[in-house]
Amino acid sequence: MKIGIIGLGLIGGSFAKAVKLNTSYEVYGFDTNRTVLSKAKADGSINEVLSDNNIDKMDFNIFCLYPNSCIENIKKNKDKFKKGSIVIDACGIKGAIVDEVDELLNGKNVNYVGVHPMAGTERSGYDFSYDSMFLGASFIITKTDNTNKSAIEKVREFALEIGFGKVVVTTPKDHDEIIAYTSQLAHVVSNAYVKSPSLLKEKGFSAGSFLDLTRVAWLEENMWSELFTMNKESLLFEVNTIIENLMKYKKALEEDDVDEMRKLLREGRVLKEKSMEM
Amino acid sequence: MKIGIIGLGLIGGSFAKAVKLNTSYEVYGFDTNRTVLSKAKADGSINEVLSDNNIDKMDFNIFCLYPNSCIENIKKNKDKFKKGSIVIDACGIKGAIVDEVDELLNGKNVNYVGVHPMAGTERSGYDFSYDSMFLGASFIITKTDNTNKSAIEKVREFALEIGFGKVVVTTPKDHDEIIAYTSQLAHVVSNAYVKSPSLLKEKGFSAGSFLDLTRVAWLEENMWSELFTMNKESLLFEVNTIIENLMKYKKALEEDDVDEMRKLLREGRVLKEKSMEM
Repeated sequence: MKIGIIGLGLIGGSFAKAVKLNTSYEVYGFDTNRTVLSKAKADGSINEVLSDNNIDKMDFNIFCLYPNSCIENIKKNKDKFKKGSIVIDACGIKGAIVDEVDELLNGKNVNYVGVHPMAGTERSGYDFSYDSMFLGASFIITKTDNTNKSAIEKVREFALEIGFGKVVVTTPKDHDEIIAYTSQLAHVVSNAYVKSPSLLKEKGFSAGSFLDLTRVAWLEENMWSELFTMNKESLLFEVNTIIENLMKYKKALEEDDVDEMRKLLREGRVLKEKSMEM
Repeated sequence: MKIGIIGLGLIGGSFAKAVKLNTSYEVYGFDTNRTVLSKAKADGSINEVLSDNNIDKMDFNIFCLYPNSCIENIKKNKDKFKKGSIVIDACGIKGAIVDEVDELLNGKNVNYVGVHPMAGTERSGYDFSYDSMFLGASFIITKTDNTNKSAIEKVREFALEIGFGKVVVTTPKDHDEIIAYTSQLAHVVSNAYVKSPSLLKEKGFSAGSFLDLTRVAWLEENMWSELFTMNKESLLFEVNTIIENLMKYKKALEEDDVDEMRKLLREGRVLKEKSMEM
């Protein structure tokens, strides 16, 4: 099997390395950064450079680009994909991407599946990619009325083959709602957390809780600003929800209401326990 | 040297175990829970039970209790401490405690130093205590006009002796302001984070960022509600600051302003970088 990977950043690079580690598939990779391409070729993560001349030979193409660039690149190649081949994209939001790509590839005899590998670090770029990035992680597959069932099965097998621990199938809408909470809100809150004037006084005082809360404040703003604005409604709901909840703690403090504070904290503790039991 | 430890919970238990691991001092421990006392004696973390009959023999007493109970217990024992001995308390806020204890022990010929070991886990209780809890951690010593300088040195030596990596000396006021940001706000935000209706849908979608943001949502509400309300002004400042900052991301989303969102995210990323360089 021949696999094309478009975009050899943190995720694309890790796909290439995980395929090489776990399978005997041939990997063809492309990146606009020529240094990255040379490195990937030199370290054996890709067999060859993916180009206009060979993309029609790929059985499976994985687009690992920022959302807008992803749509653009699929559009550019829409008439070049091999008939019956599979195209997936790894963007962190699905609704806006899947709608557009379904439309673009309609009638092209190509099986498109929007996915989301639930992995990553706060770093970005090929240099931080590694072959065990996906080990045990969840792989989300989204399906619409247009999604080919046997393509879903092939994508599922591929994910498990390269190390993912679990495959979850959902709709783009449900994916985007949940991801707004579990990932996007975490990045917003963490990024807002570091904006206190107290930040630069904290040396020697950083307990683990501060480090945990601020780990993902270090993010790639070009990618995340696209992801956020393309998932506006769901993320707004979550940002509003946490602001409303924070207002309750604020009120309890202002009113010196230790009983109310204890009640608020207990509610949160019990919910956290429930989430751990799931 | 004889060391008394009052309260054998997560922190007190870890103090007992760390002293036993690293020194040949005798440890006398007290806890209102008799099962804990038996365990601590059986596993060798304490030599004897600390009581009204032997507290006057201790060279060094460590109070590891919730804030109000800490003040009460120091008050109860204020005429029993050995002359020239050292008393420390490990409460997570210092201003309210130090003011009151300084007053209580005034003229008693006892050297009181308010401290804060920057360690812990989201668990509580003796069963989760362990001898390397403090390994490499910061130990905060607070000083006021009443604090004896040679007592500070003795406390510093003791902290390094049992495994702390670094000792920081500051004022109770500065301590409380910084801790409101690095620890208390982290607990408030994490506890508020789990209060979204999306929480119980997240199975299979939890990336590391969600787990990091919600780790300390699981907290002991009796202790934290005391700590928060006893540090009202500083914590209110931090809660207000993060709410105001979150409102900016909310506004950028509402206005579909991807440039403003990118700018907000970049500001946070740069601040996080600065904090990592400190």
